Amino acid sequence: MQQQQRWVRFEHGGETGFGTLEGDAVHEHRGNMFDRPEPTGRVFVLSGVRLLTPTEPTKVIALWNNFHALGEKLKLAVPAEPLYLLKAPNSYLAPGAPIRKPLCEGKVVFEGELGIVIGKACTAVSEADALGHVFGYTCANDVTVADILNRDASFAQWVRAKGFDTFCPMGPVVATGLDPATLTVTTLLDGEVRQNYPISDMRFSVHQLVSLISQDMTLQPGDVILCGTSIGVGSMKPGSLVEVEIGGIGRLGNRFG
Amino acid sequence: MQQQQRWVRFEHGGETGFGTLEGDAVHEHRGNMFDRPEPTGRVFVLSGVRLLTPTEPTKVIALWNNFHALGEKLKLAVPAEPLYLLKAPNSYLAPGAPIRKPLCEGKVVFEGELGIVIGKACTAVSEADALGHVFGYTCANDVTVADILNRDASFAQWVRAKGFDTFCPMGPVVATGLDPATLTVTTLLDGEVRQNYPISDMRFSVHQLVSLISQDMTLQPGDVILCGTSIGVGSMKPGSLVEVEIGGIGRLGNRFG
Repeated sequence: MQQQQRWVRFEHGGETGFGTLEGDAVHEHRGNMFDRPEPTGRVFVLSGVRLLTPTEPTKVIALWNNFHALGEKLKLAVPAEPLYLLKAPNSYLAPGAPIRKPLCEGKVVFEGELGIVIGKACTAVSEADALGHVFGYTCANDVTVADILNRDASFAQWVRAKGFDTFCPMGPVVATGLDPATLTVTTLLDGEVRQNYPISDMRFSVHQLVSLISQDMTLQPGDVILCGTSIGVGSMKPGSLVEVEIGGIGRLGNRFG
Repeated sequence: MQQQQRWVRFEHGGETGFGTLEGDAVHEHRGNMFDRPEPTGRVFVLSGVRLLTPTEPTKVIALWNNFHALGEKLKLAVPAEPLYLLKAPNSYLAPGAPIRKPLCEGKVVFEGELGIVIGKACTAVSEADALGHVFGYTCANDVTVADILNRDASFAQWVRAKGFDTFCPMGPVVATGLDPATLTVTTLLDGEVRQNYPISDMRFSVHQLVSLISQDMTLQPGDVILCGTSIGVGSMKPGSLVEVEIGGIGRLGNRFG
């Protein structure tokens, strides 16, 4: 098992850095977060930096229909393979930053999710070797304009409904050394628990997702796979605070509008 | 009207550069391709450099059902809005580089397309101002595993079918100063013309696409919008050479497998 660490990216004094979070102290590192980064010796207090998205992904892949509980509730067919889309880069959002209301009409919903962060490039990696290419895990909110998804009968608009600016908050950290099968995702809307589901309920496990998706697309360090959501998805009102919390990672909070 | 120029990105002696192509001479520039680049004075012969994708997009957006001729042939409903997906970054491919056969089974098809290259960041730009945010145009091949698209009845796999490694050849240049409404896309399979269609047949024009998509997603310099394809799409066999040619831009050639 990897060492348990919590990595952040941050902005301080106009410069971008990264490091480990220990309590309220950010221990700055240099080099490559995914390949033997070195401590610089500088330490910042967490409240004195602005957190950024925990990695800079080349792509964020988002699963659909990956939890038994939600699939059964919605009476969805059991998928024979992972079903996924891409979140647009303009949707990536830092912890604490506001989720903006899109120009279009329609109900905007939160979806609390676990994000798998890739650490080593991989193409067609085996299930047995998949976890060795995972760096860690983060929290994410897969924000969606629900009303857009099926309004064109000929073409399901997954990419558009989930790709608006600010629609992919991620963070606050990437945590290493966790066993994903033991994790629980909790989503709070204005302080009230709306989602609380175990990762062990996934149709495709972390090692299956990494292995199967890497047969289609080479995964790069920093890339994120959002594991899909489960029951309890709901809509946000202007001013709503959505928090996605996973033990060992922390709590990702973003306000809507 | 902008000055007519043809921009390339290239690799030479282990370094990446960019410049204008005049005949067989690449005039290297420095700075930002989209904002007052300066000539370095160095000139390379085209055959002495390796061309790269003409830009480094943060995203490539690909339209579906955007040509009257193909929509009518396939009896598709007339879309009320642009219908689009994202091409995965691992699919971006340089001119001349091989398109690799994916590990999955299924017919792999070519789709010759016009690519709009964004030059200035824009969010919710008006139709009147849209062309002022376009840098130029390129050729693209929107490669697709056709059999994957609808094999899961509950979820159309657009992103996956079009997102395999090497499935988005682009280039050979970005051409500025063209009037897109006058362009024709010609696709050749092993030297034989298979597609030959006018951009004037688009359901949503270039300025409508840029304006409407920018209401959803902020567009960044270097981002590409693939305008969709028209009739004549066909499958590739191992060894097939696909060339996409647009007057004023040039010919993008990539071999399959």
